[in-house]
Amino acid sequence: MSFVRNLMTLIKEKKSVVCMGLDPRLEGEGLIPSHLIDQYNDPIDTILNFNKELIDKTHELIPIIKPQIAFYEKYDALSALKETINYAHKKGLLVLLDSKRNDIGSTSEAYAYSNFRIFKADACTINAYLGIDGIKPFIQYKNKGKFILVKTSNPSSIDFQDLFSVGLDNISKEEFEIDIDKVDNNLKLKRNYVQMAELVQKWAKNLEKYDNYHNLGVVIGATFPNELKFLRKIINNSIILIPGYGAQGATAKDVKFGFDKDGLGAIVNSSRGITYAYAKNNDYPPEKFAEAAEYEIKKMNLEINKEINL
Amino acid sequence: MSFVRNLMTLIKEKKSVVCMGLDPRLEGEGLIPSHLIDQYNDPIDTILNFNKELIDKTHELIPIIKPQIAFYEKYDALSALKETINYAHKKGLLVLLDSKRNDIGSTSEAYAYSNFRIFKADACTINAYLGIDGIKPFIQYKNKGKFILVKTSNPSSIDFQDLFSVGLDNISKEEFEIDIDKVDNNLKLKRNYVQMAELVQKWAKNLEKYDNYHNLGVVIGATFPNELKFLRKIINNSIILIPGYGAQGATAKDVKFGFDKDGLGAIVNSSRGITYAYAKNNDYPPEKFAEAAEYEIKKMNLEINKEINL
Repeated sequence: MSFVRNLMTLIKEKKSVVCMGLDPRLEGEGLIPSHLIDQYNDPIDTILNFNKELIDKTHELIPIIKPQIAFYEKYDALSALKETINYAHKKGLLVLLDSKRNDIGSTSEAYAYSNFRIFKADACTINAYLGIDGIKPFIQYKNKGKFILVKTSNPSSIDFQDLFSVGLDNISKEEFEIDIDKVDNNLKLKRNYVQMAELVQKWAKNLEKYDNYHNLGVVIGATFPNELKFLRKIINNSIILIPGYGAQGATAKDVKFGFDKDGLGAIVNSSRGITYAYAKNNDYPPEKFAEAAEYEIKKMNLEINKEINL
Repeated sequence: MSFVRNLMTLIKEKKSVVCMGLDPRLEGEGLIPSHLIDQYNDPIDTILNFNKELIDKTHELIPIIKPQIAFYEKYDALSALKETINYAHKKGLLVLLDSKRNDIGSTSEAYAYSNFRIFKADACTINAYLGIDGIKPFIQYKNKGKFILVKTSNPSSIDFQDLFSVGLDNISKEEFEIDIDKVDNNLKLKRNYVQMAELVQKWAKNLEKYDNYHNLGVVIGATFPNELKFLRKIINNSIILIPGYGAQGATAKDVKFGFDKDGLGAIVNSSRGITYAYAKNNDYPPEKFAEAAEYEIKKMNLEINKEINL
């Protein structure tokens, strides 16, 4: 079954567009509670039980979770990732694996296989700096969701994504730099993230749609609401994964521009804001981290649904 | 010890700038010989023994190997990757892990940790679409090598990397598209890969150098020799990883522009061209795949060293 179809169904059923990010940290800011670290002998068990408890308490409130593979790699805990995904599926959740993979040809095929067949994710994130060669092998999995990075939530996303660019067919391949006056005056310069959004739109042209959306989505940070509003018009058939809510500072008013008139077309991710909510909420001791997450999600659902028409 | 320092030493000792890509494939084009697949029960043992035999026959002829992590993920064989890296180190080889990881903040830190501490790579590849936020955590490992994607070897690298772009400080953040005549006439438009190369040069400004090179390298495909020649001038203190030799069609004449007057400053990768050389060389039956690889590397060393001044 198509990812986007399943996602739409769950969003409508659960009245939620919230995605819970599962980024387990055993040290530093946003820690897994110490009683779990003490209780289990190794990172794999600690992480898995942390995730399971979170899923148990929250699965009826959200359509989807987003584990960030970097943390599972860091703690040599990819088996905990696999078991988390399996457990989430049993609980009726979709799983978006945040892997930001990117390569070309058969290497890209290998990544797509590992994301969808080894880890059994329903969707994943992709970086398209390498062009369509790297995206095609993912698109082959036509029922799986793919989210291409367009405008990321971090401050330094401006370094490269915000440059103004233009494609120039009449310039020879050997020209690397050109004077501005060589460019046709009627052309527009567009920010790189706009160019990326237009590429996604082009690559998705023939994809099957369900409820107006296809399986080639995009990532646009909630920390850039104006950009989100502008980009929504360009990629009007892509589901938008909106990270940056909560811990990174964005609010329900910032994300509303990602949604259509029916309150569909986007999902809003929060990771630390949900999973480590206990650390900022005096009503919940560390032992009640999952209840704190549940409370935080209910609050997010209320806040976001007030702004959109779900 | 600094990656670039070790690399320079090995290049001079072995008179080789060749990097052997280890991308194990158990089916399709460029297959691991069937006698190995039959001999070992599972992908992990098959891949590990394939890699070990290749390393045994070639370690004296090359300074470095480049395993592509996608294939190890595909076959659920990350333990074979770890053991391969360990084995290569014992044989005096450096290891560049081709992972093209990219993210921000603590997630990027987790990736850097996993590349350098869990897999114990000496260097890795990175995608910098997200800007400096994603690169900093890697740079913290100051003795490790980092290779940022600039111009990749695939045909569709033009989709995005070849757009002409410009940074415009005087344009408000809220303007997403602008008319060309708003741009100062004296400004130059530069291809996105040129912009990326200049970002690398900027980010590397204060890094320690050894023999004129620091640990923040770049990736530029051998399939674009003119671009290589042009970019070499911009990133004159970065080691260039040059993929695309052999199977992707580039030759020694194409890669020579990556090198300085002493024949240093770049490494040339070939994966299938070396490891599956037996399939295109009638002198070597599948059982002699490692000897075929050895022969291919000797040929590459001869061909490339003739063009550069090593």
